[in-house]
Amino acid sequence: MKNPILLRQPGAAAVTLAAPLAALDTADAVEHLNSMDRDDAAAVLAALPVPRAVELLEQPELRDASVLVARQDLALAAGWLGQMAHDRATDIFQGLDAKHRDQLLWRLDPDTRDAIRKLLRYPPNTAGALMTTEFVAVPADWTVGRTLQYVREVERSRETVYAIYLLDPREQTLVQVVTMRRLITGEPDAPILQVAQATPPVAVDAQMDQEEVARLIRRHDLLAIPVVDARGHVLGIVTVDDVLDALIAESTEDVHKFGGMEALDKPYMRIGFGEMIRKRAGWLGVLFLGEMLTASAMQHFEDQLARAVVLTLFIPLIMSSGGNSGSQATSLLIRALALRELRLGDWWKVALREIPTGAVLGAILGLLAIARIAVWQYAGLYDYGPHWGMVALTIAAALVGIVGFGSLSGSMLPFVLQRLGFDPASASAPFVATLVDVTGLVIYFSIAALILGGTLL
Amino acid sequence: MKNPILLRQPGAAAVTLAAPLAALDTADAVEHLNSMDRDDAAAVLAALPVPRAVELLEQPELRDASVLVARQDLALAAGWLGQMAHDRATDIFQGLDAKHRDQLLWRLDPDTRDAIRKLLRYPPNTAGALMTTEFVAVPADWTVGRTLQYVREVERSRETVYAIYLLDPREQTLVQVVTMRRLITGEPDAPILQVAQATPPVAVDAQMDQEEVARLIRRHDLLAIPVVDARGHVLGIVTVDDVLDALIAESTEDVHKFGGMEALDKPYMRIGFGEMIRKRAGWLGVLFLGEMLTASAMQHFEDQLARAVVLTLFIPLIMSSGGNSGSQATSLLIRALALRELRLGDWWKVALREIPTGAVLGAILGLLAIARIAVWQYAGLYDYGPHWGMVALTIAAALVGIVGFGSLSGSMLPFVLQRLGFDPASASAPFVATLVDVTGLVIYFSIAALILGGTLL
Repeated sequence: MKNPILLRQPGAAAVTLAAPLAALDTADAVEHLNSMDRDDAAAVLAALPVPRAVELLEQPELRDASVLVARQDLALAAGWLGQMAHDRATDIFQGLDAKHRDQLLWRLDPDTRDAIRKLLRYPPNTAGALMTTEFVAVPADWTVGRTLQYVREVERSRETVYAIYLLDPREQTLVQVVTMRRLITGEPDAPILQVAQATPPVAVDAQMDQEEVARLIRRHDLLAIPVVDARGHVLGIVTVDDVLDALIAESTEDVHKFGGMEALDKPYMRIGFGEMIRKRAGWLGVLFLGEMLTASAMQHFEDQLARAVVLTLFIPLIMSSGGNSGSQATSLLIRALALRELRLGDWWKVALREIPTGAVLGAILGLLAIARIAVWQYAGLYDYGPHWGMVALTIAAALVGIVGFGSLSGSMLPFVLQRLGFDPASASAPFVATLVDVTGLVIYFSIAALILGGTLL
Repeated sequence: MKNPILLRQPGAAAVTLAAPLAALDTADAVEHLNSMDRDDAAAVLAALPVPRAVELLEQPELRDASVLVARQDLALAAGWLGQMAHDRATDIFQGLDAKHRDQLLWRLDPDTRDAIRKLLRYPPNTAGALMTTEFVAVPADWTVGRTLQYVREVERSRETVYAIYLLDPREQTLVQVVTMRRLITGEPDAPILQVAQATPPVAVDAQMDQEEVARLIRRHDLLAIPVVDARGHVLGIVTVDDVLDALIAESTEDVHKFGGMEALDKPYMRIGFGEMIRKRAGWLGVLFLGEMLTASAMQHFEDQLARAVVLTLFIPLIMSSGGNSGSQATSLLIRALALRELRLGDWWKVALREIPTGAVLGAILGLLAIARIAVWQYAGLYDYGPHWGMVALTIAAALVGIVGFGSLSGSMLPFVLQRLGFDPASASAPFVATLVDVTGLVIYFSIAALILGGTLL
């Protein structure tokens, strides 16, 4: 905590910095804060009226919200968290260091403290971690008018009021959901159940993965989905905007993983050098060790290499084509599995599609290769030797085999990962390329031995 | 159109097939229809009451909605489209073949026809193409009570009623937005402007890219964003669930592109064999032609290759490491640019980070390579010749250069694409690998000439 007295009674500097924020809307004000030095931003926040500071802290786009809260004195920080949506307060709380957390926890009002402690229990990326406890629930025997009056009273303190959860008056379990749009069309004296949906409410378990939650929200066109415990009590709700944020974070993760690295959870320019190296070196090293097998494979074919240098010329070309076709197939299957277009049991259908697809793609590349060799040979650009026709045929045949094999392994890898309990999105383009490279070399030299045996080899 | 008479007066078969749908909620009914033969599904839809059929057709998860509509007689199809949300009706209409479209257009009620024609004008993936024209707009001089009454009346026919757009009574231009949650808290006699937001409404242009629209909706925590023309008239609104669907489609596209192929717009198992080949062969062929430069580079270094076969052993290992580090860097930068964490002008900051990062990563791999060669040499697993120490040094130095170069080119590629007006997400792992492979060979042989000149070379 730096100079808490200045922050509590903001000096002229903080007030001057805060002045332009007044004219900005929330999103622009957040951007303005993000562009400032962290100390200045903390001072500006402290100088703002509490409701405005809370509004800005609630934006997930605000950088280092935890850092900004950590730099305030405990009373102010506790006040802010107490007025925030519980899910956001929990996120910020989680970002503090252990010492700060302990000190702050006892300054929070009991309601906020309980809510944060409950939310902290759920593993990250689950419905429980994503949910907010600020929703509207009323007994199912209320009338439309009474419910509407209640919503008016609590509106300010709820994350959404557009879905109203009807609870069994005795058991407090979820019986039905009413949307606000249907609620306002009801007669004030009518029982609320009259405007409720006809179908049973869709609810999720607190442990459900956020991607699955997003899928359900989307599938049922909801603005929020209730999270219930085993007995049907509503623990909280996950709103569509939390899901939107979660999905965007998830696509970033997926692209990073597909690029062959650990996902980063911070913006590119805000990762320290050491962390950047750690996140990238791990997979790069594993792939390197895997790829070392290519050196072993090459050693095995050393005699052929010495006898026919012409074969080495095409090694990068052939291997990269196997890797590229594998990368295509993996990208297709990662998404097909993520969108539940395919299930684990469908692997053989995919295999039956990928083998002919890969073979045709390989044949197309093979024709390009034959054309390239023939043109160079006839134009006198390079002399592939007396057996150049056979060499061209070897390359083409190897391409059919390797691209076919690449497509097959690339498409099967996400299934294998899912079967082993990993996220299929952990399959990366470099991973597939590495898988295909070693086998590709073996296929290449075996076909060469077959076609060129007795002539060049 | 197959047997329209059967479809208009459904036979026993269609009725039997339709029966189980009655008990299912919308999402499950859609899944059930998706699992059926297209002819059966068309017959079942025709046998359903019109509102139910419309409800099912409105789900974006329903497969081949256009095919199902095309198989109905024109009067039924026109009736369905007329009762659907205009944006969805336009999507379905767009999926019909030209002959069907012409015939159907004149059967539509004038309102629907006009709306569809307007929506068809916007390019795909823009706010205009994504928007619906079914929103709630009222004159800004109305009272809270009058607005609420109006919303009650039109509720059924609007995609959302949670954002109400206030128009200038004379100019019909957008002045302000009121959320439903604020509206219900207002006194019936109060002017509606009293419960409106304090800040000016956030609106977008019809040509804005859907990703940018998603970013704005998220940034301002909206449930819908208005699309306005140059004079401020509201053309339609884009709702958060349309954005959610668009984002999911976009992540699929991005993963496909990053995998090095044209994005597929249909589920994997539903792409025809010919289309699958076309979508994959294009990029595979281009990459193959690019990779052919490796063969040229190798031809150039033919003498060295013949003299030192030991150098060829490590070609796949070294080249793949360059490609892998490039793929990591590209995946990082694609997302950083998509999330607007970085701007075009920041390229030099990224370059200054990637060069040392790449060099350190290369050094780590270089140490692994030296260890591998030393172990094999001492254990007698392979003899790298009398100069094996120098060979190991060559490999390690080449790795520093190539991984450094790979990280740099991989990180710069998305910037270059954005500068040229392409989507940075068009950069793919195979594309980067191909870029790096040719240069990687040149770096490798140049370093080899430097270190091994006079001894092995």
